[in-house]
Amino acid sequence: MPDTDGTSRPGDFQAWSREVAGRVESALAELLPASKIAPARLHDAMRYSTLGGGKRVRAMLVFGAGEVTEADPDRLKVAAAAVEMIHAYSLIHDDLPCMDDDVLRRGKPTCHVEFDEATALLAGDGLQSLAFQLLAEYRLAERPDVQLKMIQLCATACGSRGMAGGQAIDLDAVGKSLTLPELEYMHSLKTGALIRASVLLGAHCGAPLPQSDLDHLDRYAKYVGLAFQVVDDILDEEGDAAALGKTVGKDKASGKPTYTSLMGLAPAKRFAGELLADAEEALAGFGERAARLREIAGFIVHRRR
Amino acid sequence: MPDTDGTSRPGDFQAWSREVAGRVESALAELLPASKIAPARLHDAMRYSTLGGGKRVRAMLVFGAGEVTEADPDRLKVAAAAVEMIHAYSLIHDDLPCMDDDVLRRGKPTCHVEFDEATALLAGDGLQSLAFQLLAEYRLAERPDVQLKMIQLCATACGSRGMAGGQAIDLDAVGKSLTLPELEYMHSLKTGALIRASVLLGAHCGAPLPQSDLDHLDRYAKYVGLAFQVVDDILDEEGDAAALGKTVGKDKASGKPTYTSLMGLAPAKRFAGELLADAEEALAGFGERAARLREIAGFIVHRRR
Repeated sequence: MPDTDGTSRPGDFQAWSREVAGRVESALAELLPASKIAPARLHDAMRYSTLGGGKRVRAMLVFGAGEVTEADPDRLKVAAAAVEMIHAYSLIHDDLPCMDDDVLRRGKPTCHVEFDEATALLAGDGLQSLAFQLLAEYRLAERPDVQLKMIQLCATACGSRGMAGGQAIDLDAVGKSLTLPELEYMHSLKTGALIRASVLLGAHCGAPLPQSDLDHLDRYAKYVGLAFQVVDDILDEEGDAAALGKTVGKDKASGKPTYTSLMGLAPAKRFAGELLADAEEALAGFGERAARLREIAGFIVHRRR
Repeated sequence: MPDTDGTSRPGDFQAWSREVAGRVESALAELLPASKIAPARLHDAMRYSTLGGGKRVRAMLVFGAGEVTEADPDRLKVAAAAVEMIHAYSLIHDDLPCMDDDVLRRGKPTCHVEFDEATALLAGDGLQSLAFQLLAEYRLAERPDVQLKMIQLCATACGSRGMAGGQAIDLDAVGKSLTLPELEYMHSLKTGALIRASVLLGAHCGAPLPQSDLDHLDRYAKYVGLAFQVVDDILDEEGDAAALGKTVGKDKASGKPTYTSLMGLAPAKRFAGELLADAEEALAGFGERAARLREIAGFIVHRRR
């Protein structure tokens, strides 16, 4: 998905996304407590579930939004690591037996299978704390009050009116028939909130933007977050476990409502395309500065895993 | 435990602690999402486990330390509410079947018994997020960089090298024989870290203190945190369930090492007395400003529940 004005070369996005993945991986490896630090088993589990896997979509969004405000990459990598820690914590807890009871994640046994339930629970808890510690410890914005704002929006995105709340609604929806607006509301919390926080965190790492520009970025993030989930459902319906690295067809089998079950496969694909167009439209005023964000949106919609 | 110069009247501490408990209770009731806000069951669970119970020792320490720096009570109540939310989250997760598997807490069924395991897990997760949200959202210090420092120290206290790490070590210790230094290390993380954070948070809400004074307060908090745990073990050995509001004798029955099992009951009581003296000594330079902190230390050691 090359951008439209020709300065970003086709194929270039793949190299960029690999570079971002490499940067956030090394930041995570450095910022997570070493396995030899006590309690070693807990730190092993935190590293096991955070390092070496995942698409790093949230990290890409942090770096992509950081390009809009010409943010320092050293700030972006800390913000991206924090967001990826929060994402990893949510996956560990989601996979627990009392939640989705999943045994496979990113092609590896889930944390509670590899370690044990108590360690998995605490690894998730510790990752959430560490994310906020990093967001407060490193200098991430021009002004400390902006950084407080960043922590506030990230915490809100994680909480009971964000990610954790979306997970609660999701669990409650098993076996029920949701309407499309109800499904959209659930996903806007469960995955959408952290995706929006990722974009805004990245932008706040750089030069201040007028509120109207922040609103455009947030609108972009909203469409991208929604598209991410629609495509997830399409891949879950069509994909194979080897490519996805997780159990396939599970949502359908467990009676969880999905976009494909509610809309049908072809309309869900059309919907993803519309959301991509909406996301690109939200970036219209940013020109070349938003080239990476455009590419990320294209990647999210056209990915195969 | 009246203070030594006579300006604080005997009996006065009880009224003060009731006032603090009332303030933090109303702050929590206001700052926790209302039960009618979706997802309602999750918000019910968060309120159930945070409101209406507990000794509010951490809130008292926030307010007591705030008196040292003449901090605004409106700031202290937000900081105290955040700390009590973190404490409540840790209790919810500790009580889960994969952890201590407890059914009684503060005289009520534990969160996963009253609701369900998934809701309890998410309620804990959401409380941790909300605590950091509040610490970032409200103005709590003279300068925003001080407030970032407060968030950093609170997050560190919660994390894998603090409270969550202590819980991991505690679980790992079941059925093992720990030495006294190992037991002390475990408790310094499991309960000590958040108690120390409570004192420093309260102090940072007010006028800046020189580092040496912060070090004295931290030393006070270290002794008080240790004393708190020693007395907990004594009460668990001697107490009855009705007064404590939780299952009694359980640590002993489950083979968890305790101060009383390692030292014996009478030496543990002497040790608690020594820790109280050490805590008071750490406050020697503060005069009347630390009267409440002295009283809290006395309360922690002489409490019956």
